[in-house]
Amino acid sequence: MTGITRLSATDLARLIRAGDTSPSAVMAAHLDRIHAREPSVGAFQYLDAERAMTRAKAADDKPIKGPLHGVPFVIKDIIATDDMPTGWGSDIYANRQPDQNAHCVQTFLDAGAIPIGKTVTTEFAYFSPGKTANPHNLDHTPGGSSSGSAAAVADFMAPLAFGSQTAASLIRPAAFCGVSAFRPTRGGFDLTGVMGLSHSLDTLGILARDARDLVLARSVLLSTPLPGLVDFSETCPRIGLMRGPDWWNGSIEMRDTCTRALSALAAQGAETGELAHPSLFAQLTPAQITVMGYETARERAYEYHNNRSQISSQFTDLITAGLTVSDADYDSALDCRDRVYAMLDTVFSDYDAILAPSAMGAAPSGLAATGDPLFSRAWNLLQLPTVALPSGTDNQGLPLGIQLIGRRHQDQKLLDTAQWAQPILTELL
Amino acid sequence: MTGITRLSATDLARLIRAGDTSPSAVMAAHLDRIHAREPSVGAFQYLDAERAMTRAKAADDKPIKGPLHGVPFVIKDIIATDDMPTGWGSDIYANRQPDQNAHCVQTFLDAGAIPIGKTVTTEFAYFSPGKTANPHNLDHTPGGSSSGSAAAVADFMAPLAFGSQTAASLIRPAAFCGVSAFRPTRGGFDLTGVMGLSHSLDTLGILARDARDLVLARSVLLSTPLPGLVDFSETCPRIGLMRGPDWWNGSIEMRDTCTRALSALAAQGAETGELAHPSLFAQLTPAQITVMGYETARERAYEYHNNRSQISSQFTDLITAGLTVSDADYDSALDCRDRVYAMLDTVFSDYDAILAPSAMGAAPSGLAATGDPLFSRAWNLLQLPTVALPSGTDNQGLPLGIQLIGRRHQDQKLLDTAQWAQPILTELL
Repeated sequence: MTGITRLSATDLARLIRAGDTSPSAVMAAHLDRIHAREPSVGAFQYLDAERAMTRAKAADDKPIKGPLHGVPFVIKDIIATDDMPTGWGSDIYANRQPDQNAHCVQTFLDAGAIPIGKTVTTEFAYFSPGKTANPHNLDHTPGGSSSGSAAAVADFMAPLAFGSQTAASLIRPAAFCGVSAFRPTRGGFDLTGVMGLSHSLDTLGILARDARDLVLARSVLLSTPLPGLVDFSETCPRIGLMRGPDWWNGSIEMRDTCTRALSALAAQGAETGELAHPSLFAQLTPAQITVMGYETARERAYEYHNNRSQISSQFTDLITAGLTVSDADYDSALDCRDRVYAMLDTVFSDYDAILAPSAMGAAPSGLAATGDPLFSRAWNLLQLPTVALPSGTDNQGLPLGIQLIGRRHQDQKLLDTAQWAQPILTELL
Repeated sequence: MTGITRLSATDLARLIRAGDTSPSAVMAAHLDRIHAREPSVGAFQYLDAERAMTRAKAADDKPIKGPLHGVPFVIKDIIATDDMPTGWGSDIYANRQPDQNAHCVQTFLDAGAIPIGKTVTTEFAYFSPGKTANPHNLDHTPGGSSSGSAAAVADFMAPLAFGSQTAASLIRPAAFCGVSAFRPTRGGFDLTGVMGLSHSLDTLGILARDARDLVLARSVLLSTPLPGLVDFSETCPRIGLMRGPDWWNGSIEMRDTCTRALSALAAQGAETGELAHPSLFAQLTPAQITVMGYETARERAYEYHNNRSQISSQFTDLITAGLTVSDADYDSALDCRDRVYAMLDTVFSDYDAILAPSAMGAAPSGLAATGDPLFSRAWNLLQLPTVALPSGTDNQGLPLGIQLIGRRHQDQKLLDTAQWAQPILTELL
């Protein structure tokens, strides 16, 4: 029974469509896994196993509803659900019950997917962690803010999860938990019903173990036909490593896995190269902090002013700092983004994707913090589509990850490259 | 020499093009008028007569630059100018010098228009008044927040002015000063370089004595050809009076001028009627207050948090109140707007324009306040294009005004109707 939880959403959907398994059998396997592991991992903020099973059984008897018929999924708890509380990781909203599903949730339901529950997020998708542990080592953080979603997918509690990213909240937990994640070009997925922090930065994203599932989920969210696999036998993917200004802040294992990943991709036929970063690139991380502070201070002004005693000092500090950012500094930060983006144009003429570290290294020990977003802030500010892929492990056996970054609005092209690269990177020791 | 200041921008531009007068002669006449009247009226926040004259003389010797060649204009002081300070009516920004012109200013410059100076605005375009008096009676308010722009145009200091509106800041001062104003469908004019209060409500607008000038200014701002006058001899304009839920809060003169205006328009061939307002309409004014508070609290958070001691208590109160508005209440207010707008759809199938009071009555006495925005809040929340037109006077000889309101994105159609109606309304005793 457990074997079924190792399958991808793509395979589960196909087996269900073929009648080789059923929604209830798939759900039962995942609930068994959750029953065994959830007390240790703590991925769920809200879980109603009975209702999930009832829904799965109902799907057994119905005609195929859509491309995700009978496939279980989990939902980061900043995303509204009309039949499960949505608490945003904050005591203020602990028992709030939205009256509508977020657009992404409703789209998945319409495609036949079955929600298991809501997954743990940090407070307001910022830094203060929830209860979730890293399934690979329970003393280590799963990363944040999509902590529960990454842990649930990594630990075979669900094949698919919704997460979100404003700084590094998809790419970092994906790397720490050894799963894949897709962050679209900003604006790529509808954010209706998703709590906002910073409108220039916020993006909904998907976590899965198989890059093919990222493509499937995207096609469902956008109501586009599922694209076929691209044949790269004629034209090789072109992938350039951009170490970036913070390279030497990464662990030796992280730096090693990036260079080995590039070699492995080249050995399988990729056209590879090393890319210098524009010197202005070093200003992107402070610029991202400026934009995020400025916008979050305004987006979450209500809680800051009306519920201050129920907000963590970290989140209070973010808003307090954001309120000291002048309009001029905010505009300069956005201008910096636009200038670097223009400079990257030639890079994207020569390469299909940039390869870069996902995080400073493997998941740090301790559950009191979720790790540093350093290696994602700049890319996220640039609003570029990004795929996180697992790539080897550190000397403790903890996962490492790299990210592939594409040109804005070339999301499917990036996913094509990621699908090609994934099995090669999985082979890395 | 003074006669020239009575001319419209349209006529001035034509005379200059024909060589019948010159930019410097036009500017000299306006500067003479300003010299005589500005000490009493106080329309200007910043005035450099010498430079305006230098510019006008330079235009004398140059080929016709565009449709506003040599036409003087003035600019509300929340609109950025790269060679005049832009203070937003606030001590905090008293000497700030922007490095770029607002889009509207640059567009006028490119069309050959010549700026005279910056006009007085209330603090942050909200309630706390500047020094400007009503030219018709110096003991009365000119209205706000586009106080100086309305007074300058009314007092023949300039034929054209830029203003802006978030609640009633174009329509009310236009009515109090006896001039015309145009507020486009929200988003109709580029707001780059214009201070923001509330993005769902803010609109740039134009003040002039002649509705024809509103059309000219709009065509320049949008870079579209100047439309010709519409011939209404075959198909009459259809104009319906909507008294609205606050009708009985208007003065007897205001109510009288609205009904007499409707009769006069009907007598000249308009198809007229009286329109009931949807009962939900009564919720629009509180909804506008909710939206404006919520958005302004976020838009101007910087000053509230960093310069509180330099902000008036009125503006502080607006932000303090706005910060207590929950996301849910804000969403409800926007939803109310959308529902009423949908209900008005049938009205706009039957009528080209709605006629409504511009303000509660004529300009109140005293300069400590700028009058009540009651009769514009709802229309402004609805994001509808609006033209203010003078319509008679009260028993003290102070101007009264009505507004014509059109369907969203039917701005030119509304202006056609306004041009037809203006001479009829001017005849009202």
